[in-house]
Amino acid sequence: MQIDYAKLTTHERYKLLVSTVVPRPIALATTVDLQGVVNAAPFSFFNAVCDEPAAVMMCVNAVPGALKDTARNIRDTGEFVVNLVDEDIANAMNICAVDFPPEVDELKEAGLTAAPSLKVRPPRIAESPVSFECRRLANLELGIGRNLVVGEVLTAHIRDELIDAEKLRVHTEKMRLIGRMHGTGWYARTTDLFEMPRLSLDEFRQLKAAAED
Amino acid sequence: MQIDYAKLTTHERYKLLVSTVVPRPIALATTVDLQGVVNAAPFSFFNAVCDEPAAVMMCVNAVPGALKDTARNIRDTGEFVVNLVDEDIANAMNICAVDFPPEVDELKEAGLTAAPSLKVRPPRIAESPVSFECRRLANLELGIGRNLVVGEVLTAHIRDELIDAEKLRVHTEKMRLIGRMHGTGWYARTTDLFEMPRLSLDEFRQLKAAAED
Repeated sequence: MQIDYAKLTTHERYKLLVSTVVPRPIALATTVDLQGVVNAAPFSFFNAVCDEPAAVMMCVNAVPGALKDTARNIRDTGEFVVNLVDEDIANAMNICAVDFPPEVDELKEAGLTAAPSLKVRPPRIAESPVSFECRRLANLELGIGRNLVVGEVLTAHIRDELIDAEKLRVHTEKMRLIGRMHGTGWYARTTDLFEMPRLSLDEFRQLKAAAED
Repeated sequence: MQIDYAKLTTHERYKLLVSTVVPRPIALATTVDLQGVVNAAPFSFFNAVCDEPAAVMMCVNAVPGALKDTARNIRDTGEFVVNLVDEDIANAMNICAVDFPPEVDELKEAGLTAAPSLKVRPPRIAESPVSFECRRLANLELGIGRNLVVGEVLTAHIRDELIDAEKLRVHTEKMRLIGRMHGTGWYARTTDLFEMPRLSLDEFRQLKAAAED
């Protein structure tokens, strides 16, 4: 089936994208406003984007005239913390996604703990297995209220048992992170893994020759 | 454990990012050069980013003086096709990642079929369950040779049995897409799913009140 995007409504475009581009990693982002009030909200238009500078991107929507907290806070302060989401804090993440009034402390409602960051004002979430302190490098306004925010990673916090400190080797399979799937509430666990090593040109040629024998 | 990114090498920064920001969706991108020669290569610094305009982003590295095919082709033509990757074409995707000389046709080596696109010159991959024809909206050069490419989605191709054409409802769970995990070759299947519906403020308050009873 071929679908001409020019003929779709905004909602249809969104629905098709989020039900096909899966699994998406999840950033539970913490920010502060100019008074220091903490906000926490999850985003799945999120990914790593660069090694040098080390950077992640996150797309944050803002309604004109009524900037949502994360978008307004990043615009005002240039800082955010990305907290990754494992199975244990999945439900807490979902509470942070509730459309609370601005004065409500999402972390408290969700039973999560704010821990101080080293280089930015927004706290990290203590229960998160991995957090990245970020300073905004760029904000690309793709459409009205649609912000593609790129942040440089300044500090990483990783739970001790998840990393070999000597070799900086992360035990990714032990993190049990979840990915965002489709619909209003489907998620994937990262439990059903398989290994398919990348091939050098020589390895590919050898495999091909063997298959043709 | 706290890790100061200023003290890491580029390789260490990369290793920490790709072993923690998971699961990442995968774009098997097809492009053409100015002579029409097709290139195909997989990228996992990829995601949907916007509904209006409908857009995806993909980060493509280029070595100065020796532009890799995808980066050079998008720079020269402004067009690319994102083909999503299911379990059936995982191995073919891995062959497209082999560092072939520029004149080698990755699709042929991988046993994949180029099918014509409607609005852009790069072909889509017939075996892919979903393909998006894209025209570059923006290219953000984050570092030397590091391109964050944003493409507007012009056309979506979805395999007939994966979509309810009337309601534009995608059967995401039937797509069996894979996500990129850590290391040189770990991937996740999207088989181990769970539902956690997003809560309205009223629903949250009712749940909270019930829990406190």
